[in-house]
Amino acid sequence: MRLIPFGNTRIKSGFWAEKQKMVRDVSIKSVYDRFADTGRFSALDFNWKEGMPNRPHIFWDSDIAKWIESAAYLIHTAPEPELEKTVDELVDKIIAHQDECGYFNSYFDVVEPNERFKRRGDHELYCAGHLIEAAIAYYNATGKRAFLDAMRRYADYIEKVFVTDKSAAFQTPGHEEIELALVKLADVTGDERYLKLSKHFIDTRGQKEERGYDWASASYFQSHLPCRDQTTAEGHSVRAVYLYAGMADIAYKYGDKALEKACRTLFENITERRMYVTGGIGSTRMGEAFTVDYDLPSITAYTESCASIGLALFARRMQLLESDSRYADIVERIIYNGFMSSVSLDGKSFFYENPLEIIPSLLEVHGEIHYPATQRQEVFGCSCCPPNITRFIASIADFMYTADDENRVIYCHQFMDSETRFELGGGTVKLVQQTAYPSDGKVKISYEGEACTIAVRIPPWCTVYDSVREDDGYVYFHAEDSEVIELDFEPTVKLIYADPRVTGLEGRVAVSYGPVIYCAEEPDNRLPIRDIRIDTESPFVYGFDKSLNVPTLSVRAFRHNSGGSLYTYGKAPLEDFKAVLIPYYAFANRGEKEMAVWLMTR
Amino acid sequence: MRLIPFGNTRIKSGFWAEKQKMVRDVSIKSVYDRFADTGRFSALDFNWKEGMPNRPHIFWDSDIAKWIESAAYLIHTAPEPELEKTVDELVDKIIAHQDECGYFNSYFDVVEPNERFKRRGDHELYCAGHLIEAAIAYYNATGKRAFLDAMRRYADYIEKVFVTDKSAAFQTPGHEEIELALVKLADVTGDERYLKLSKHFIDTRGQKEERGYDWASASYFQSHLPCRDQTTAEGHSVRAVYLYAGMADIAYKYGDKALEKACRTLFENITERRMYVTGGIGSTRMGEAFTVDYDLPSITAYTESCASIGLALFARRMQLLESDSRYADIVERIIYNGFMSSVSLDGKSFFYENPLEIIPSLLEVHGEIHYPATQRQEVFGCSCCPPNITRFIASIADFMYTADDENRVIYCHQFMDSETRFELGGGTVKLVQQTAYPSDGKVKISYEGEACTIAVRIPPWCTVYDSVREDDGYVYFHAEDSEVIELDFEPTVKLIYADPRVTGLEGRVAVSYGPVIYCAEEPDNRLPIRDIRIDTESPFVYGFDKSLNVPTLSVRAFRHNSGGSLYTYGKAPLEDFKAVLIPYYAFANRGEKEMAVWLMTR
Repeated sequence: MRLIPFGNTRIKSGFWAEKQKMVRDVSIKSVYDRFADTGRFSALDFNWKEGMPNRPHIFWDSDIAKWIESAAYLIHTAPEPELEKTVDELVDKIIAHQDECGYFNSYFDVVEPNERFKRRGDHELYCAGHLIEAAIAYYNATGKRAFLDAMRRYADYIEKVFVTDKSAAFQTPGHEEIELALVKLADVTGDERYLKLSKHFIDTRGQKEERGYDWASASYFQSHLPCRDQTTAEGHSVRAVYLYAGMADIAYKYGDKALEKACRTLFENITERRMYVTGGIGSTRMGEAFTVDYDLPSITAYTESCASIGLALFARRMQLLESDSRYADIVERIIYNGFMSSVSLDGKSFFYENPLEIIPSLLEVHGEIHYPATQRQEVFGCSCCPPNITRFIASIADFMYTADDENRVIYCHQFMDSETRFELGGGTVKLVQQTAYPSDGKVKISYEGEACTIAVRIPPWCTVYDSVREDDGYVYFHAEDSEVIELDFEPTVKLIYADPRVTGLEGRVAVSYGPVIYCAEEPDNRLPIRDIRIDTESPFVYGFDKSLNVPTLSVRAFRHNSGGSLYTYGKAPLEDFKAVLIPYYAFANRGEKEMAVWLMTR
Repeated sequence: MRLIPFGNTRIKSGFWAEKQKMVRDVSIKSVYDRFADTGRFSALDFNWKEGMPNRPHIFWDSDIAKWIESAAYLIHTAPEPELEKTVDELVDKIIAHQDECGYFNSYFDVVEPNERFKRRGDHELYCAGHLIEAAIAYYNATGKRAFLDAMRRYADYIEKVFVTDKSAAFQTPGHEEIELALVKLADVTGDERYLKLSKHFIDTRGQKEERGYDWASASYFQSHLPCRDQTTAEGHSVRAVYLYAGMADIAYKYGDKALEKACRTLFENITERRMYVTGGIGSTRMGEAFTVDYDLPSITAYTESCASIGLALFARRMQLLESDSRYADIVERIIYNGFMSSVSLDGKSFFYENPLEIIPSLLEVHGEIHYPATQRQEVFGCSCCPPNITRFIASIADFMYTADDENRVIYCHQFMDSETRFELGGGTVKLVQQTAYPSDGKVKISYEGEACTIAVRIPPWCTVYDSVREDDGYVYFHAEDSEVIELDFEPTVKLIYADPRVTGLEGRVAVSYGPVIYCAEEPDNRLPIRDIRIDTESPFVYGFDKSLNVPTLSVRAFRHNSGGSLYTYGKAPLEDFKAVLIPYYAFANRGEKEMAVWLMTR
């Protein structure tokens, strides 16, 4: 099984075309401007001195790299001469300041030149990984090799320091990322050494005690056990899922069954015990971490945007290891919910955390507890999320197809109005999807090419195809040289219930329409939002909010008409009103407002 | 209206006789031993030097004072020669080390002798207040004047420093307490100067900006506004209610209507907006403070034992200002619930915080959030609560009666099996209550004395006397020279609902029987406790737990039989079981267990 990369697909209209247009027209520039304001790009001039503003930061190379990667994906899809010129200038600076040995880091070389690879917690290999991914993306987009060659030299140097000489002060990265980047580098260069280096980092992790910060345990860095022995998702959630993605890559490349088993177990632990209904992960801001099974508090959800992205990257790699729709189901849950909430509808600002509930009146009094920002920002001190979001949207078609060349099976995982061409067994195939998914459940897939099997994922909320759906969650169609498959998943409003072991969701439901989870927000409803009781016996009416430009669901609901007394021996009377729900991804676009995903029912 | 002090009453049997016996037999000794272990009593030797263990602490005089006060109340009720000898020794030390000017503080005089009355946040006047209360209690119990005279000299010195010379570095106490103590001192000495000094502190507070700690706002110390302008309960909750008790005293003594109005407004704000159903107050550990209206989180409830005590002391003073049963209703709510939970059933250990919910599995992962200790302790670093609890139980009969001499009305506020004698209009009256309250609703009140009116409070959960109950919540009986009043309040199980504006209690009820609020605790039930749904259509069965020696309520309940999937499109099936509830005051006597007051219903 192999991935069909986004470069083979052109998204033509609908939900994702609009989001990609937003990134192209607004976000890429907005993120660039904020990064410029904060000195991130000028750090590449390597001329910062003590006392000057904008002291370089250990994360900044990764921010720049993800911005370049985003730009590369946009350029790959359609020419952007201005953007390409900007990237070329940045790449020139990177190459100009790269050390002869191959090392490059705009923080360490300028601020602490004697500290290279001495501190595990300081993100050098994380930055290197993102630079490698950016270089590959730019090479794929433009054919220009200079950046890729430079980053290949850096990878060679890393191999020397960590494997040949063993001269680094630590053995494995404090923040994973390079593992998956090196797999990509091996693919693009055909050089297996990079695959071995990636495997080295995975094999080495957790073999001996390695920490990184005084305050953090080994599990914060997923170093509490050898990777193949890990069974629960622990520690910093972004680090964790980036590692698991790298583990899945290595399991796939080497046919490593022990690693594959660990990946499955970890995926199951996350998605069946430690994941928000929106696909967000990371239940606490303390360590930005996973906590324990079924601990998924709504108000204090950490659910970093990068963690959702990382979980999707992990799931995409798992798709190559086994045919099971649960991986693409989780991707779908993420991309329409906990990921999509991370960017404002205008494309300019971003969430780092994506809480499932906001009660502004309690923010001030419980500042410590109610940590998540209630409003998106254009840039953060640690601004990893914005360029991660832009690169993810720009390459979203990566999630659409995989292909099994040997058996001539094409798997269709996600539904986007698009045209895709790729080679299958020596011939070119063409797939056209016509759909208004996720607003509408109709998907028309037109195939051209030699005979093959097309496996179409049936979304978990769809019951129409239960009789023809295989155990792995796909429906298999035989396609001759030309074939049109028409499906209608017939989305309806469905209530989602959480396992009763999840604290705080007792008596509550999440409302979904197709893959999209809805929320109740203050401007459309009666306060307190937490007290709204959906009348589950009344019909939901699908509508549209013109000012937000998003679909809505309205439904009869009840709320208590408070009698005024704090405690009473009788229930306060209920009064009905029309509750209006909006997609969760659209919350917080009208100021700091009360909001909840999980609602009471009557 | 005047208070009939506990010294006029002998509690003979039942709930409070048992609790008083526990304090006499166990708690007073246990608190003494722990205070001795931690060096609190040896601090009175004034021989601590840098480098020695048990460095004296600014709170310790108040701990010792409340222990002496507790001992005095026990001695007042029945001879305790050993206890009296111990107190005499402590008093001798206090007097021996009292400065010639009258000042006494075992921390400042030993550790920082040049810092007298320089730091508002350092509890000198708070300690002084408790020493004064202890001295009065000991004088009332034994007739020995030495301690009282010494503390009177201290009060004279405080008047000199704060009023005459104005030589202190601050104007009003950082921790209120002395206000109410000075009123008692005026009463026992007949010297109005102490009343004026108390009024001075109340009149001065909030007139100009006064803080006390860098991190604390003026409202932490109730200094954000002049007392008469305060309308919401703010800041540190113990400080607040001690102040309000002092304000009510001064309002009563001076007929100060503005102050009385402020007291009513504050009482209403607390009890109708900021009080837990158990009578606990203080919604956050940050500043041990009130927060905002309707913010009453269960797990993180701070609800300090001393704050419940202070609210009861405030309510008792309000009883003298107006005939309204809501004051005694709140006292009843406190004494059978949020106060009584503060001591273990064996009388040895104590809660500082009294949470309304415990989920042990989440304690470790959310250490910051789930602050309250889940187990009572014998002593704390700041151990204000244990001796406050013992003095409160030992003098609980203070809450039973008030008398209006002019109109010859005796108000009966609380129900305890007891015998009371006091003077009314020149003659002695005798009241005998025979009752097993709160387990049973029957109360027989036998009166002997000249004709008078007896006003009996009808508890808010009782509906039997609705037709004869006056607007103020009392039923008025005319008593000739001898009269027997027999009532039966007929307690039943009642469900309590919270105002829908309280976040987190949606769909939940508290179960009560008479004045006692029940909770579900892990040893008697199925986990998770939060998921238990009481079947409100099934009968509750009143029973008894022999090992805990407390009544129980059992009822048919439901819980979800988890299907295993984290999120599902269908509800997990319900299975029924017998839920057993115990009085809230008895929780946490069987180890660290899951517990909740607020339960779901089916």
